[in-house]
Amino acid sequence: MFNPFHNHEGPEKRTPEARFFIDPDYFKVEMNRWFANRWETVGRAEEIPNPGDYILRTVAGESILITRGTDGSIRSFYNICTHRGTVLVEKEKGTSKSCQFSCPYHAWSFDCQGNLLGAPGMKDVEGFHEQDWGLRAVGCETWSGFIFVNLDHTPAILADSLADMPSKFVNWPMSEMQSAACIEYNVKANWKLIIQNYSECLHCPSVHPALARLSPPTSGENDPPNPFYVGGKMSLNDGVTSMTVNGSTDRPLIATLDGTQLRHVYYYALLPNLLLSLHPDYVMTHRLEPLAHDRTRIVCEWLFEKSTISKPDFQTNDAVAFWDMTNKQDWHVSELTQKGLNSRAYRPGPYSNREHLLYDLDQILLPKD
Amino acid sequence: MFNPFHNHEGPEKRTPEARFFIDPDYFKVEMNRWFANRWETVGRAEEIPNPGDYILRTVAGESILITRGTDGSIRSFYNICTHRGTVLVEKEKGTSKSCQFSCPYHAWSFDCQGNLLGAPGMKDVEGFHEQDWGLRAVGCETWSGFIFVNLDHTPAILADSLADMPSKFVNWPMSEMQSAACIEYNVKANWKLIIQNYSECLHCPSVHPALARLSPPTSGENDPPNPFYVGGKMSLNDGVTSMTVNGSTDRPLIATLDGTQLRHVYYYALLPNLLLSLHPDYVMTHRLEPLAHDRTRIVCEWLFEKSTISKPDFQTNDAVAFWDMTNKQDWHVSELTQKGLNSRAYRPGPYSNREHLLYDLDQILLPKD
Amino acid sequence: MFNPFHNHEGPEKRTPEARFFIDPDYFKVEMNRWFANRWETVGRAEEIPNPGDYILRTVAGESILITRGTDGSIRSFYNICTHRGTVLVEKEKGTSKSCQFSCPYHAWSFDCQGNLLGAPGMKDVEGFHEQDWGLRAVGCETWSGFIFVNLDHTPAILADSLADMPSKFVNWPMSEMQSAACIEYNVKANWKLIIQNYSECLHCPSVHPALARLSPPTSGENDPPNPFYVGGKMSLNDGVTSMTVNGSTDRPLIATLDGTQLRHVYYYALLPNLLLSLHPDYVMTHRLEPLAHDRTRIVCEWLFEKSTISKPDFQTNDAVAFWDMTNKQDWHVSELTQKGLNSRAYRPGPYSNREHLLYDLDQILLPKD
Repeated sequence: MFNPFHNHEGPEKRTPEARFFIDPDYFKVEMNRWFANRWETVGRAEEIPNPGDYILRTVAGESILITRGTDGSIRSFYNICTHRGTVLVEKEKGTSKSCQFSCPYHAWSFDCQGNLLGAPGMKDVEGFHEQDWGLRAVGCETWSGFIFVNLDHTPAILADSLADMPSKFVNWPMSEMQSAACIEYNVKANWKLIIQNYSECLHCPSVHPALARLSPPTSGENDPPNPFYVGGKMSLNDGVTSMTVNGSTDRPLIATLDGTQLRHVYYYALLPNLLLSLHPDYVMTHRLEPLAHDRTRIVCEWLFEKSTISKPDFQTNDAVAFWDMTNKQDWHVSELTQKGLNSRAYRPGPYSNREHLLYDLDQILLPKD
Repeated sequence: MFNPFHNHEGPEKRTPEARFFIDPDYFKVEMNRWFANRWETVGRAEEIPNPGDYILRTVAGESILITRGTDGSIRSFYNICTHRGTVLVEKEKGTSKSCQFSCPYHAWSFDCQGNLLGAPGMKDVEGFHEQDWGLRAVGCETWSGFIFVNLDHTPAILADSLADMPSKFVNWPMSEMQSAACIEYNVKANWKLIIQNYSECLHCPSVHPALARLSPPTSGENDPPNPFYVGGKMSLNDGVTSMTVNGSTDRPLIATLDGTQLRHVYYYALLPNLLLSLHPDYVMTHRLEPLAHDRTRIVCEWLFEKSTISKPDFQTNDAVAFWDMTNKQDWHVSELTQKGLNSRAYRPGPYSNREHLLYDLDQILLPKD
Repeated sequence: MFNPFHNHEGPEKRTPEARFFIDPDYFKVEMNRWFANRWETVGRAEEIPNPGDYILRTVAGESILITRGTDGSIRSFYNICTHRGTVLVEKEKGTSKSCQFSCPYHAWSFDCQGNLLGAPGMKDVEGFHEQDWGLRAVGCETWSGFIFVNLDHTPAILADSLADMPSKFVNWPMSEMQSAACIEYNVKANWKLIIQNYSECLHCPSVHPALARLSPPTSGENDPPNPFYVGGKMSLNDGVTSMTVNGSTDRPLIATLDGTQLRHVYYYALLPNLLLSLHPDYVMTHRLEPLAHDRTRIVCEWLFEKSTISKPDFQTNDAVAFWDMTNKQDWHVSELTQKGLNSRAYRPGPYSNREHLLYDLDQILLPKD
């Protein structure tokens, strides 16, 4: 009745050890390596269109203040006062008409470039110079309408981390597109399981029967791996024009796409935290915010061209409902995997040939030794 | 006004150090020693009477799938898929008509003996052989209608762990008896405090006045200690026929019991997690499932003969209400003890002569040095 | 756009490192150093006026039983039975008419001096002597109606820890005053941030505009620092007679106060956990009970002379509403500071000259090296 665990001699390419997904200490290491020292997506420039507009975002556990200055530039700062460490801004989103931020405790005030403007009671303190006590800045750049920040003290430029993505997706006018729908998910799974799940369609027949009717699960063609992103494209079935509830769309197709682009959906994971799903008529994005080794906040947005949004019959429901259902199916199996990885009986399992992007991802994301 | 703690020179037999009950790290050690490497009760064979029936049970923190096969045998497996570690079965109890289990993620499927039947997309993977990737099995046997599992890779046979219990209780036809009532408790106390509490009646006058009216608290006669169980019997007062709200029973007494057995209740703790309370007309069982150093799930069931259950006037309330009240009284003082053991002022206290089973238990359950 | 953190060369007097506020391990060290080995306030003698009256209080995580004996003396004990460690008394406040306490588990009973009176079943146990197994006592003294306890095994006398406070406040008849209002707060901030907040009024203009209208924020005159308390006085504005919603009071001023005392409010933090705010017509007290590195229970009481309380038109609302609002403003900025201190961008910031008591407090409360 009892058989001890096999000492598997089989396939070489195996799933990772469980600790990379279930160990809170490894999660801290990973947050430092992948989220505190690299460029990561935190939102869209359209969220703060005017000077004084600001948003708070959490990056590697840090509250980061992102604000547009009087000069129109977007900058980001650690959201604490340099006096006693008090949280500077409390609201998640707002506008400072004066483009200034005042600490709620002792009223130290800062301009939108982070400079200390005033510090009550500090005038007579020997050795105190206002220019030394500005807000602590965080690297901040944008691409295609996405805001990226980087907590590294001396970050490389963002372009180095995008590789050839800008040229690859030049036909989608993402800088000009706008979010018309947003859903937040709180998923009880490690962030890497979310990216794994995104990177194979072997699970599509069992998990996503509706998706499999629009796009053949075996149609994936993936790019060769590189350190910055993984991804590829899948074809649409004959008669299907986009990924929606009924496979068709009333929205205009994006005019700048070529013939191949109109017959495929492109799925790319820009590491560490942006999933870009480019359709003939819209772009879906997932922004991942790891909360713990076993919990990830996911913000999903649907971007459309402004001219499309302004049409009188514009609606997002056919795309949003389709992907919301698909998302929830994915989170469910990801959560079941997170749970199962805690078992002492777990051993690295064999990857199929249709999960090779996962093996590539492991090589990129996991430590070598 | 102040007296420092005594350096007690008094009695030799003392309660254990607090750490055995309040230290989360020791709890992990103990789970491995007592729950991951021994036979423990997980339920009743009657819960899965037909082929394809299954239940999930948690053993030492592991989700274990217990199922009856097409051959009528009961087997148990770690409840994770061997592919990517996903939880295989989600429902706590159910029936697989085909006697097969299919993973919700990539549809790997297994038969009720754990064999891998199908693995989509794996055909072309070099070195992959289905026979290597069956479910990971767990030792599984039954006695007297109880299902036992053992996570040890090479478990000894169950009979070795039952010692002379089978012969001792042969007169109660437990294999044929059925559960007619079940109450679950979530108790904020270490599992050993529950067994301690079960193993002495010194507390009966203060904690269980109703019980003390049916059965004399000082009437206990205990067996000599052994490594597998501790226990003994207590007599019923004159005129009392069973432990019930009013001390009498309308149910037939079990016909195979002898005269002594009809005038006593037998209380045995089969280590580590089955408390067996044998009455003249029914058997009560407590199954302990340690959840944390300070929390234990307890499933209490009342078993009766089938012929008794089938009687038109059959009811369980007099037995259930009596013991539910008594259980709650016990959990309350056990929780107060768990709480008190956290105090820095706690020192091992003196056992009375009526708590000698507790001292015996400590010798069995706790590390020697 | 990016500036790395400055290597501040500026002012010498800086806020402490974050770990003293955010590290759970340092909190344990601190609990031992400041709460388990010193005299700390636990309540008022008026709470247990009669023999047999008792209260439970938590000191450094320990449940302490404080009771008034048949001789009228107040004593305190660890609230666990010396037999098996069970919690002895369950109710937070009550009266034992017999001045005895009986353990709910096995009925060991103790008198109000902690002596073991009876221990069922222990008579025949060799080496057991009742006088060895009394309750474990805790140092207990009173001053000005406040009960202090000390978990140290050989505590110094309380008077040594009060320094010159008794003479300094002799004009407020606190022993005779009574609490007429009480509010409990659960604040998500380290206890030291509460004392810091209490010890400077630089934040008053931004945080407490109403307070600043009654008492000039810059009017503080502080005592030189000493190891037992920090504090000083602030003046009342012309026309203001007390700190209340409207700056006036219908209550009689305390007759024994001198002219200076009638025109000031005195704010003293008696370390580690009593904040004493002495007004012309009442005394407000905050008792701090640290629950975790980032959580503090605060019990705020308003004491009045008995003759004042007995007046037909006596009310507390003008004082209570004023300070409840002010308290909540303080807890809010303290919580924002607790939160901000978790940031990796936090660096010790410069104290202004109006925060010098905080620097003094740091010297007293924090380890030297």
